[in-house]
Amino acid sequence: MSGTHSGRPRVGCRPILEDKWALVVVDSLATGARRFTELKRGIDGISQRMLTVTLRNLERDGILLRTVHNVMPPHITYELTPLGSTFLQAARPMMQWAEANVDRVEQARADYDSRAG
Amino acid sequence: MSGTHSGRPRVGCRPILEDKWALVVVDSLATGARRFTELKRGIDGISQRMLTVTLRNLERDGILLRTVHNVMPPHITYELTPLGSTFLQAARPMMQWAEANVDRVEQARADYDSRAG
Repeated sequence: MSGTHSGRPRVGCRPILEDKWALVVVDSLATGARRFTELKRGIDGISQRMLTVTLRNLERDGILLRTVHNVMPPHITYELTPLGSTFLQAARPMMQWAEANVDRVEQARADYDSRAG
Repeated sequence: MSGTHSGRPRVGCRPILEDKWALVVVDSLATGARRFTELKRGIDGISQRMLTVTLRNLERDGILLRTVHNVMPPHITYELTPLGSTFLQAARPMMQWAEANVDRVEQARADYDSRAG
């Protein structure tokens, strides 16, 4: 066996990948800063709580920047950091694969489940 | 807001992304078929149970093929399907990003946690 699966990088890559909403949120910020309510409206099926948690995790990871605007009324925006922009670019091929192959994966699951009885 | 975040593809891409071990297992099959024990040995920190679950999910998704070899003693191998190979190629940029940026992400987390008190 090669040694490529041991060591620290694997540990580091896990938290981002295991958050099922992180990619969708990052993709939503591709074209610039957004407010919470704009993100919530634009992401089909995300709950207020999941969006809150996902935004906080991504801010903690250094992927996005949260800015409080001290105007009247005050508001908060979220935008990608430079690190977040490189993450989005790296994630794009996988997002495109998922969109292109969702039917094949669903068909494979249906086949598997019918074989399993 | 654009409509790119609604509809079916998002639902389909989630199950693969939310499994934190799927990418590591797929990467382990990049160079050919492997037995369970070979995979277990090669993947740092995975439990017997998590590897079993991950292999079954990936087989169900059509990403890998499980073959029972009727020789003495009988054994089972796992290998990528053609669909699995395209998935691995699409996932590579994100895996490389994670390896290259693990230190930046960990630093961002430490900074966030110290600001949060």
